[in-house]
Amino acid sequence: MILATLQDGTPDGRLVVISPDRTHYALAPVQSLREAMENWAVVAQALGAVSSFPEPVSGARFAAPLLRAWQWLDGSAFPTHGQLMEVAFGHDPLDDDFPLMYQGMSHQFLGPDEDVRLPAEEHGIDFEGEYAVITDHVPMGTSAADALSHIKLVVQLNDWSLRAIAPREMKTGFGWVHAKPACSVAPFAVTPEALGAGWRDGRVALDLHITFNERPFGHANGAAMAYGFHELIAHAAFSRDLAAGTIIGSGTVSNPDYAEVGSSCISEVRAIEMIATGKPQTSFMRFGDRVRMEARAPDGSAPFGAIDQKVAPCR
Amino acid sequence: MILATLQDGTPDGRLVVISPDRTHYALAPVQSLREAMENWAVVAQALGAVSSFPEPVSGARFAAPLLRAWQWLDGSAFPTHGQLMEVAFGHDPLDDDFPLMYQGMSHQFLGPDEDVRLPAEEHGIDFEGEYAVITDHVPMGTSAADALSHIKLVVQLNDWSLRAIAPREMKTGFGWVHAKPACSVAPFAVTPEALGAGWRDGRVALDLHITFNERPFGHANGAAMAYGFHELIAHAAFSRDLAAGTIIGSGTVSNPDYAEVGSSCISEVRAIEMIATGKPQTSFMRFGDRVRMEARAPDGSAPFGAIDQKVAPCR
Repeated sequence: MILATLQDGTPDGRLVVISPDRTHYALAPVQSLREAMENWAVVAQALGAVSSFPEPVSGARFAAPLLRAWQWLDGSAFPTHGQLMEVAFGHDPLDDDFPLMYQGMSHQFLGPDEDVRLPAEEHGIDFEGEYAVITDHVPMGTSAADALSHIKLVVQLNDWSLRAIAPREMKTGFGWVHAKPACSVAPFAVTPEALGAGWRDGRVALDLHITFNERPFGHANGAAMAYGFHELIAHAAFSRDLAAGTIIGSGTVSNPDYAEVGSSCISEVRAIEMIATGKPQTSFMRFGDRVRMEARAPDGSAPFGAIDQKVAPCR
Repeated sequence: MILATLQDGTPDGRLVVISPDRTHYALAPVQSLREAMENWAVVAQALGAVSSFPEPVSGARFAAPLLRAWQWLDGSAFPTHGQLMEVAFGHDPLDDDFPLMYQGMSHQFLGPDEDVRLPAEEHGIDFEGEYAVITDHVPMGTSAADALSHIKLVVQLNDWSLRAIAPREMKTGFGWVHAKPACSVAPFAVTPEALGAGWRDGRVALDLHITFNERPFGHANGAAMAYGFHELIAHAAFSRDLAAGTIIGSGTVSNPDYAEVGSSCISEVRAIEMIATGKPQTSFMRFGDRVRMEARAPDGSAPFGAIDQKVAPCR
């Protein structure tokens, strides 16, 4: 099953069911994905029963599948990303034996082609290509094994980051507020089953193709997570219930063979340049710069559709 | 104006308007405080026009004013608390010149007399007495001066903390997930105007009386914030809009003369004991322990009502 949300001016948008070939859609029997998540067991059956898709996807204006969510917890589950960010930010290696995770803003997720409005170029504007999952209600103390069945949808997102601010906030230990503005999300939310071989061990085993100003930037694979999404969910639910519609992120997709596959954020590329030549060469984003992100299946299809957008000043 | 939310089994509860003497209530003309916040300019007039309060407050079952919110950003604006926590956690002083703030879980706020269910005593269960404000929509880049008018309601809350876990999470720089379970909130949300002299310079100038297992624990005053709530809001809105219904917290209320006024969390008391004798004597909470928090006006009244609850095992 593939779902998406049309921009209709309401705070949660209008849920639609997408045809298996991703060319047409039908209005869903419930108004919004938020509503669907809160009653998933019942609603999923009705959504799955939709078999007639009268409207063309081409030309439709998609929002993020969830325009707002009660909770967004982003992991950092790719060890290569962690190692390169230690170089980028100049901090010591963490000797932790648990998944890294922060709580980010969840009251606004940008659509796949909206301009991304930010205060200033000098903050080091960077993208982070990620995968994420949407859960139903997860009780406190749920095990990783049990968490797998709580994963109802998979999405692809861009966790926008302001790199010049991030280390200063990290040093406080309080996590990020300034450095993590609203994320962008690709149009299609897909059930794990519909990903077929692209869903393995609680991971998205697909290459995430990224182009920066139309130049190929990376195509790292999501299978390289040190912890699967089910393990991230169990971590998140240690001392709290997770509300239905919670979004759990993978962190920046990153592979050890980055020399071949490239990266999913600029900061990693700068770290690789620092290691090779002593200083970074690639600049962070300027207003007007454009990034495109699209996971691809082996048959060339794009299960989540594409994020394709530019950054712009906020006023 | 004083508002509260009745537990009625719905996810957002039932909004009521409380009489000025806090003895009676009337059902509000909108269903929930969440709905009211999203259309505050219009709804506040209707709420303010309620003048007949038929139902007695005594015996009513109050939830948190907002059972769930799109965003909860908690500051740490009392310098004395920061200094003592450096001792408690054994970390170096931060030389930052901006407010400390983390994003916490906002999809569940516990009511004032609900049991607080947590995984284990060994995690160092602690309370943190705080004040907080609820805003309407705040655009990205709003100044501190302009932020003052976005403060619509003031609340009193308990930011539950698991102290044995907190330093490990802080060391990652990612902030807290395990160490910060759901907060509890006192029953009454009060407009700044209705606090009278208790609202000053964007601060709650009231003593927060805390008893731990019925023994007096502290009565620190909220006026000692290094940054007012308007400054915390401006900080929060640096690179994001704040959704209507965002809750911004003060951090643990703490005063320099703690020898006289006591503290608002156990961890501070343990730090004071460490400074005095080399090691902490006061234990963190055990299951069954009870904490009561009640801000008091000079006339002895309790503008926010009381939080009075005990901790219990989650299963």
